[in-house]
Amino acid sequence: MMYLAPVAGILALLFAFVLVRRVTAMEVGNEKMQEICKNIHDGAMAFLKRQYKTLIIFVVLVAIIIFAIGMMTEGEGSMDPMTAVAFVIGAFCSILAGNIGMRIATKANARTANAAWKSGLNKALNCAFSGGAVMGMSVVGLGLLGLGVTCILFDANADIIAGFGFGASSVALFGRVGGGIYTKAADVGADLVGKVEAGIPEDDPRNPATIADTVGDNVGDVAGMGSDLYESYVGSIISAITLGASFGITNGILAPLMVAAIGIVASIIGCFFVNVKEGGNPQAGLNKGQWGSTILAIIGTFVVCQFLLKDGFTIGDSTYTGFGVFLASVAGLLVGSLIGVVTEYYTSGDYKPVQKIAASCETGTATNIISGVATGMLSTGIPIVLVCIGILVAYYFAGLYGIAMAAVGMLSTTGMVVAVDAYGPISDNAGGIAEMAELPHEVRKITDGLDAVGNTTAAIGKGFAIASAGLTALALFTSYAEAVELSLVNMLDPMVIVGLFIGGMLPFLFCALTMNSVGKAAQQMVMEVRRQFKEIPGIMEGTGKPDYARCVDISCSAALHEMILPAVMAVVVPLAVGLILGPECLAGVLCGTLVTGFLLAIFLSNSGGAWDNAKKYIEEGHHGGKGSPCHAAAVNGDTVGDPFKDTSGPSLNILIKLMTIIALVFAPLF
Amino acid sequence: MMYLAPVAGILALLFAFVLVRRVTAMEVGNEKMQEICKNIHDGAMAFLKRQYKTLIIFVVLVAIIIFAIGMMTEGEGSMDPMTAVAFVIGAFCSILAGNIGMRIATKANARTANAAWKSGLNKALNCAFSGGAVMGMSVVGLGLLGLGVTCILFDANADIIAGFGFGASSVALFGRVGGGIYTKAADVGADLVGKVEAGIPEDDPRNPATIADTVGDNVGDVAGMGSDLYESYVGSIISAITLGASFGITNGILAPLMVAAIGIVASIIGCFFVNVKEGGNPQAGLNKGQWGSTILAIIGTFVVCQFLLKDGFTIGDSTYTGFGVFLASVAGLLVGSLIGVVTEYYTSGDYKPVQKIAASCETGTATNIISGVATGMLSTGIPIVLVCIGILVAYYFAGLYGIAMAAVGMLSTTGMVVAVDAYGPISDNAGGIAEMAELPHEVRKITDGLDAVGNTTAAIGKGFAIASAGLTALALFTSYAEAVELSLVNMLDPMVIVGLFIGGMLPFLFCALTMNSVGKAAQQMVMEVRRQFKEIPGIMEGTGKPDYARCVDISCSAALHEMILPAVMAVVVPLAVGLILGPECLAGVLCGTLVTGFLLAIFLSNSGGAWDNAKKYIEEGHHGGKGSPCHAAAVNGDTVGDPFKDTSGPSLNILIKLMTIIALVFAPLF
Repeated sequence: MMYLAPVAGILALLFAFVLVRRVTAMEVGNEKMQEICKNIHDGAMAFLKRQYKTLIIFVVLVAIIIFAIGMMTEGEGSMDPMTAVAFVIGAFCSILAGNIGMRIATKANARTANAAWKSGLNKALNCAFSGGAVMGMSVVGLGLLGLGVTCILFDANADIIAGFGFGASSVALFGRVGGGIYTKAADVGADLVGKVEAGIPEDDPRNPATIADTVGDNVGDVAGMGSDLYESYVGSIISAITLGASFGITNGILAPLMVAAIGIVASIIGCFFVNVKEGGNPQAGLNKGQWGSTILAIIGTFVVCQFLLKDGFTIGDSTYTGFGVFLASVAGLLVGSLIGVVTEYYTSGDYKPVQKIAASCETGTATNIISGVATGMLSTGIPIVLVCIGILVAYYFAGLYGIAMAAVGMLSTTGMVVAVDAYGPISDNAGGIAEMAELPHEVRKITDGLDAVGNTTAAIGKGFAIASAGLTALALFTSYAEAVELSLVNMLDPMVIVGLFIGGMLPFLFCALTMNSVGKAAQQMVMEVRRQFKEIPGIMEGTGKPDYARCVDISCSAALHEMILPAVMAVVVPLAVGLILGPECLAGVLCGTLVTGFLLAIFLSNSGGAWDNAKKYIEEGHHGGKGSPCHAAAVNGDTVGDPFKDTSGPSLNILIKLMTIIALVFAPLF
Repeated sequence: MMYLAPVAGILALLFAFVLVRRVTAMEVGNEKMQEICKNIHDGAMAFLKRQYKTLIIFVVLVAIIIFAIGMMTEGEGSMDPMTAVAFVIGAFCSILAGNIGMRIATKANARTANAAWKSGLNKALNCAFSGGAVMGMSVVGLGLLGLGVTCILFDANADIIAGFGFGASSVALFGRVGGGIYTKAADVGADLVGKVEAGIPEDDPRNPATIADTVGDNVGDVAGMGSDLYESYVGSIISAITLGASFGITNGILAPLMVAAIGIVASIIGCFFVNVKEGGNPQAGLNKGQWGSTILAIIGTFVVCQFLLKDGFTIGDSTYTGFGVFLASVAGLLVGSLIGVVTEYYTSGDYKPVQKIAASCETGTATNIISGVATGMLSTGIPIVLVCIGILVAYYFAGLYGIAMAAVGMLSTTGMVVAVDAYGPISDNAGGIAEMAELPHEVRKITDGLDAVGNTTAAIGKGFAIASAGLTALALFTSYAEAVELSLVNMLDPMVIVGLFIGGMLPFLFCALTMNSVGKAAQQMVMEVRRQFKEIPGIMEGTGKPDYARCVDISCSAALHEMILPAVMAVVVPLAVGLILGPECLAGVLCGTLVTGFLLAIFLSNSGGAWDNAKKYIEEGHHGGKGSPCHAAAVNGDTVGDPFKDTSGPSLNILIKLMTIIALVFAPLF
């Protein structure tokens, strides 16, 4: 039955292949659209290529180190050298998924605009969603295929497959942190020189950084988000496998793999539900797909749990049933969905919080900032309570194994979540292309409708990503404790308290570093754009062609350079603490980072999202509309929110998971 | 020997009395100065009166509840009804200290201006410092007198004297949270209508909110800071007494009281070191006082520890010496001082961080905000490491008792710290009065010099207040664990993790609520000022007299109203968690709140302080100076920082201590 996991993975990849064929078979549009599309596509590929250069060195180096440690240690406290192989497979599958997804997303954008032009709303929605679904299916397909094969190869040895998760985390580190810095450096850099200094509008093709900016949307919301959820996806399964093996649960290793396999089937079927009537609301179409796959996943999970875990199991003195595991999984699934709803409430212009922030712009930038910060902080309340309820329910019905299975349940429909999420930047780009190619007004209206929905799905996706990161990290933390055979970590021990303090501080430091990184990388972009404006003749008249690729490359290498310090911190601290201060202190560090990282991630993402939509709300004509002093204040808030929501906030998802997975992989050494 | 504690308290009060005589004997100045001084003084007294009305109801109600619970419960899980008495004494002493301090601080301001005019720098410094020292001596005097008497009355019963700390916390809640909302509501309200709408300069006597604004400085930095440090001061001693009793340490109860008594003597002697030559630097004068008392306190602590604890003691399997306790205390004292230095580095215009923030104003408000946020977050790093080192050193040399004694050591020179801190607003007000009364330019120069030093001491004081709050809360947390007889709190227990999550979230919620409170209270102030501008004839021409008192009262009642929600949260959550989810979960909550509260407090205070000084740095002529676009961006940052550093940040000091003391007081019920 173990073979069913890679089979489900292959199924997802086959479906992705069908979708790729469907998207690429569509017409790109007129010559202008073809050119813009090619520029974005080439830019995205240039980014990936540049990133791979560094990433591969990193992966090879770490693999060698793990292998060497594995060869040198023996007996008690030894690491299996095969962990290095799992590590490479995990990283490779994530890279491949990101590559396929980006490749198609940057092809689907112009085709979506063209479909909106030639065939109307449903066809356009279909194109954008199919493009996103390629990413979704690649993530879960390669995730489960890779993980399934690794399990089969190494007989589900928990120590070794943790290496797979570490590989996923490493790629996510580059995707989310490097990508997050890249996207905002390009955005801010393009705005500072283009809009402020040269006085040309946004997305103007004369601005050499325009393509870098558009590429950045794909880098952040397609590749970045994809690698993040890939990490959560495999991390949660690994954690459940580890605990299943450790507690000796019959079929405990198989169950998470099968729940994931069922989730893939549910996501594929859900994709067929996505459609919309002309003049209808695309949101309703996407909702049908999401709820469809959620319900199917719940039914499938019920069957898997009742069938595989029918004998029940015992942890310590407590006995649990398969039905209990099912309830734990559903708790996770529901918490993930509900946090998405809460996120939407706090960040959408349709509700009071954002409208209040917009109103606070009446008294200037400062009150706007304070109001946004307060809203972001306030928005941590309900998600935390939801997660706590989820933890307690899962634990009550299925013990520590239940917490891991709650994470698996939450992530079972990842294929659909990523599809809907990647749909966002595709329709956003489609709108931009329609504008740049000067398509008729009706086309822009359709793409605007698609884009508006994309903003909502992006907010929900962000909430889901944070929630899944938190729950996955918690599950991995539990696995870590099992791995180092800690049956208790006494919080009254000053060593543990010190760990909590240090761990709690790391997310603050990490955020500060990534925020500063955006500033520095943007500065380099500014310098490059200024240089091109000065040196390329006729660039402002539209006769000279700007060197887009150079801008892409500059901000790419700046981003990769700027991510070194935060990345090193994330990798070195858990190792150093584990080796020097011991596994109890490390447990404190992990828990501290988990708590403040989770809180800061929600705060930063929601503040940023709320400012963004407060600006859009004002642009719709409220409080004086575009060009009013109110709008100016809102623009400032939006700019502050950019690194909050697209760099520092999402990067914390990676920090909390990466640190725990490192602790888990290197646990034998502590 | 127990009687020496109240004797030292009385000594401090006698010294305060001498200082009061010295200050009040000085000349107030010309008629105009007398009038301004009277307005501020009356405003401050109006604030206190208004606050007492609510505070007394609160204290009486809580006392009755405690007493009733005490009468109703018996045997195991009973509270002593006498706890209510200790509670009332603790609250009363804090109220009295705040009243005396405010009374004199608002008299010393005009006298400082006059001394600068008539007698020069040294006399002015002396007047401002003496005014501050009255507050300092009242805080430690009444703190140690009250606590000493309570100990003698109730035979140092740990359960009962915890009530004293609860009383201190209750007053601090009103002083810091209510006061923090008040001061910024008045500040923002005055600016919004005065500067923005009516176009009159800051501190213009035509603005009805001017006096409220000036009163606010005293409310925040004299009464608020005083009640905060009073709470830490008695909290740390109570924690050491509780642990000393619980571990059965010979003289373990006496030692913290004696260290505090020695600290009072050291502070009094230190006051005599404070002086400055004409044309010299007032900072050097204050430094002499601070270092003098620190060194004396160290010597005294050495003697106390060697003498009282010469037999050593045993906790669990470990044996400790009196010298170990001395080292623990010194560790606390050093950590407090070093955190002050770090705070200064991150918030003073003399160093790189603030200069970088100022430079980021070149590209507008948004980059200024991002830069300030990043700096604030970055500034959490070193203080956390210092506190951790302090904890480990104290624990290594004297066990859990050592952690409490580290807090006592840190706070032993509180008299001097508060004196230097309260010196700030006095010289700030003196400058304002010199301006309003149109004194000669040289006078303003002297008061400017005093004020500049005041900014530095305020930053250091803030860092010290946070550090002492954190260490005190940790010590109280340890006492709580002893009180509920928790010998271990397992962080792998999901209930504890849930506690950590909820506890970690509370400071975010608390900050959000207090930030919103400032906005709402400011709005009421704006409405009142608008009303007066419209209804009082001749107010803008200077012929009609604005109703200052009404503004003071409006913003006062608004502040008290707005603090209800955060205050209720701080009180109810620990009780509810303890009763419903149990003492382990509560331990998680307390620890979570301690960690994120401490971190957020540093982040918010330092961001705010850095923005403030970045603005001042630009006003000194850098980056275009006053009136430049850079300056406008810096002003926005400063306004954002106002509630960060003066309301939400400092309020967190109270939250973390209040929650732990509530847990300690009600421990018998859990």
